[in-house]
Amino acid sequence: MTTIEIIKAARAAWPSLKDAESPVKDKALACMADALISRSGEILSANQADLEAARGSISDVMLDRLALTEKRIRSMADGIRDVIALPDPCGVCLDSHTRPDGLQIEKISSPIGVVAIIYESRPNVTSDAAALAIKSGNACVLRCGKEAFRSANAITDALKAGLEAAGLSGALVGLVQDTTRQSARDLMTATGLVDLLIPRGGAGLIKACTENAQVPCIETGTGICHIYVHARANVDMALNIIDNAKTSRPSVCNAAEVCLVDREIAAEFLPRLQDRLVRQRAAAGLVPVELRLDREAASLISGTAAGPADFDTEFLDYILAVKTVGGLDEAISHIAAHSTGHSDAIISEDVKACDRFVKAVDSAAVYVNASTRFTDGGEFGLGCEIGISTQKLHARGPMGLRELTTYKYVVHGNGQVR
Amino acid sequence: MTTIEIIKAARAAWPSLKDAESPVKDKALACMADALISRSGEILSANQADLEAARGSISDVMLDRLALTEKRIRSMADGIRDVIALPDPCGVCLDSHTRPDGLQIEKISSPIGVVAIIYESRPNVTSDAAALAIKSGNACVLRCGKEAFRSANAITDALKAGLEAAGLSGALVGLVQDTTRQSARDLMTATGLVDLLIPRGGAGLIKACTENAQVPCIETGTGICHIYVHARANVDMALNIIDNAKTSRPSVCNAAEVCLVDREIAAEFLPRLQDRLVRQRAAAGLVPVELRLDREAASLISGTAAGPADFDTEFLDYILAVKTVGGLDEAISHIAAHSTGHSDAIISEDVKACDRFVKAVDSAAVYVNASTRFTDGGEFGLGCEIGISTQKLHARGPMGLRELTTYKYVVHGNGQVR
Repeated sequence: MTTIEIIKAARAAWPSLKDAESPVKDKALACMADALISRSGEILSANQADLEAARGSISDVMLDRLALTEKRIRSMADGIRDVIALPDPCGVCLDSHTRPDGLQIEKISSPIGVVAIIYESRPNVTSDAAALAIKSGNACVLRCGKEAFRSANAITDALKAGLEAAGLSGALVGLVQDTTRQSARDLMTATGLVDLLIPRGGAGLIKACTENAQVPCIETGTGICHIYVHARANVDMALNIIDNAKTSRPSVCNAAEVCLVDREIAAEFLPRLQDRLVRQRAAAGLVPVELRLDREAASLISGTAAGPADFDTEFLDYILAVKTVGGLDEAISHIAAHSTGHSDAIISEDVKACDRFVKAVDSAAVYVNASTRFTDGGEFGLGCEIGISTQKLHARGPMGLRELTTYKYVVHGNGQVR
Repeated sequence: MTTIEIIKAARAAWPSLKDAESPVKDKALACMADALISRSGEILSANQADLEAARGSISDVMLDRLALTEKRIRSMADGIRDVIALPDPCGVCLDSHTRPDGLQIEKISSPIGVVAIIYESRPNVTSDAAALAIKSGNACVLRCGKEAFRSANAITDALKAGLEAAGLSGALVGLVQDTTRQSARDLMTATGLVDLLIPRGGAGLIKACTENAQVPCIETGTGICHIYVHARANVDMALNIIDNAKTSRPSVCNAAEVCLVDREIAAEFLPRLQDRLVRQRAAAGLVPVELRLDREAASLISGTAAGPADFDTEFLDYILAVKTVGGLDEAISHIAAHSTGHSDAIISEDVKACDRFVKAVDSAAVYVNASTRFTDGGEFGLGCEIGISTQKLHARGPMGLRELTTYKYVVHGNGQVR
C-alpha cells in the first residue's frame, strides 16, 4: 500500500475506535501485548536481518538501540500493559456551564483522529506509540527510520493481529512502507487526513517539518539545556546537579549542554567543576567531560576554547560549554537568546533570584535546584510519554495521553434559539 | 517600519509584559479604553478617509462593517473594559505533583509570546484583539484588510498611547504597515518570532495559511453547519431552530447552511419548512430563504435544484441546502464527509439517537435540540472571543483568554538528581 492508502485506511478505521469504551480499548492493548510475545520469533528474525544490513553503516550505539532480545520484547509488552493501567483520557468532562435559558454546555475530552509519528531506529517506539494512540482513541500511522524497517514491520504485524483478535481493525495502526524522504513529505502534506504530526528525531527532521508541514505538527525534542550557577549557589549541590545533568545520559534531550557561572563565584566554582567532571571521572575510568570554555572561564581553568557555535549546539555527548556571566540578568538574557525552550535550571539559595529566574525563563520546564534530567513524562507523573514538545501550542514539555486528545463542546437544549 | 521590524519590536517588548501582575495589565487596558475615547476625533477622520476610498469598490454590507461612529467607538472602549473584568488567565496552577523524593512539579499557565492576527475590515477587531492579547500577557502584531488601514492605524495609535500612559511599551501592539500579500507571508514565515498566527477571514486566507504558514497557526471560522431533523423530531422545534440558525444572522460562521431531513418525516416536514422560510418571510416583508433541494426534496416542495457544490458551500446568505437522508447513519456519514467541523445539530426526541449523534459527529460543537448560533465565546461563558477554531490542536471552538495561553512546568527541588 502507498503512504496515502495507509493513511486513508487508518482514517476509515478510526470511527470504530474513537468512541470505544475503555474496556474495549484495554482489551485491544492486552491482545497487542500478547501478540508481541507470541510472535517474538518472527520479530527477532526480522531484527536480525535489520542488524545485519545496518552493521558497518551505523555506530555501535545505534546498533545497540536497534537490537532486540527476548527480554526487550517482554519489556515492550510490559510497556503496553502499563498503558492499560492508565486512566482513559477520553470522555472526561473538562468544564460545564448552564446558561440562564437552560442550555447545557459541556466540554468533553475526545480523540484527535489520525496521529502520524516520524521516528528513528528504536524498535520499541513502534509499540509504545501505537499503545498510546490506541488508549487515547486515535488511529496512528508510523514511519520509522530505514534501519529499523523490518523490525517495525514485524512488530506492527503483531500489533495488527492483536487489534484484530480484540475485534478492532488492524488498519488502526499503520506502518509506512516507503522509507525514502517522500513518505515523510506525504505525511506532512496530508491535509484533512492527518490530524497531528509528531516528528521525533534530530534537528534536521524537526526543521523539515516546521518548514514543510501543512498538517498540524508539534515540534519535539531538541534540548540545549542550561544550568545557571548563581552567586549564592550551594556549590556541592551545583556540582552534583551538573554532573547528573551532563553525564547520567548525555545522548538524551534533557541532558545539560551549557553551564553559566556567575562571575562572583567563578574562581571558586570552576576548579571544582573541572575536578569533578574531568579529573575524578578520568581517575574512575569514566569518559571525562570536555569543557568548552569562554575566555573568562579559560583564564581560570584549562579546557578547550569555546567557539560561538558551542553555545548553540546540542552536543548529546560528554561535552559541556561553560560561560561566565555577570549576574542573573545576563544569565536570563543568554538563555532567552540560546535556549531551545526545553529545560533550564538555576542553582541558588536566594529565593528572590530563583523566583525571578522562574518567571523570566520561557522554557517548557524551569528548574530550581534540581537536574534538568527530570523532564520526562514518567517523572512528571504523566505515566508515559510520546515526546517532549518544545513549542508552545497545544502541548509543552512531556506529552502523555492527555496531550493526545482534543475536546469538543456538547450542547443539550430543548429548543433554545439565539 | 517593515513587517519584520514590527514583529521584532513586539518580541523585544514582550518580556516587560509577560510576567506583569494583573493590576498592571488591567491599568493598561483602562488607559487603552480611555485613549480610544479621547482620540475618537482622529479615529473618525481616519475612518471617513477609509470609507471614501472604499465607496464603490466594496458592497454596502462591507461599508457598514467598516463604518465607525462615536457610539461604535464607545462600544469598542466598553469592549476593552469588559476584558478588564475577566479573570487573568496567566499564573494559574493547572496541576501539581510532588515526587517521592520531594521534587515539586507545578504546571502553570503562561502567555504564549507574540500572537499575530490577520483579519479583514471590521475596525473593532483591532481593539478587541489587542485587549485580549494584553490581558493574556501576549504582544500582538495585527494585519488588517486594506480597506480599514487608516482606521486601524488611528486605533492602534490610541492603543499604543494607552499602553505608554500605563508605563508599558507601545510596541506591544503592532500594526503591519504593508497591506499587500507580502506582509501576510512575512507573518506566516516568521519562525522563532511569531509564536501563534490566527487568521480570521475567508476560506482563501485560511487555505493560504494552512499551506504556507511555518509558524504555529490555528485555523478559524469556516462553518458549513448542518441541522439534522430526525424521524422523531418535534417539528415545531425543528422549524424554530432552523429559522433561527439560518436567518438570525446569515453572514456568520455559526449560521446553518444545510438541513438534512429524515425520509420518514420529509413529506410532513418539508412543506412546513418551505412555508416558514419562504412564504411567511416573504409575507412579512423579509428576505425569503432560497431552498436548494436534492432530487427527493424537490419531489415534495418547490425550490432550486441543488448541485453537488451546494453541500460543500458556506453560503453566508439566505440560502439553505436541503437533503433527504435515510436515517441517523446516513446523516452522520454525510456530516463526516461535508462538515467543516464547526457546529452541527440534531433535532430529535429520541435520546438514544441524540447520544449516538453526539458521539459520532466530530465537530467543535455538537448540538441536541438547539440552534448552532450559540457557538460563540460569550454564549459559551468564555467572556470574549478571539476566533472560533475549526481544527483540533490547542483550541477547538470559541477561543477566549485561556486559549491565548500556554503553560510551563516549574520544578522546585533541593538538589534532586535522577
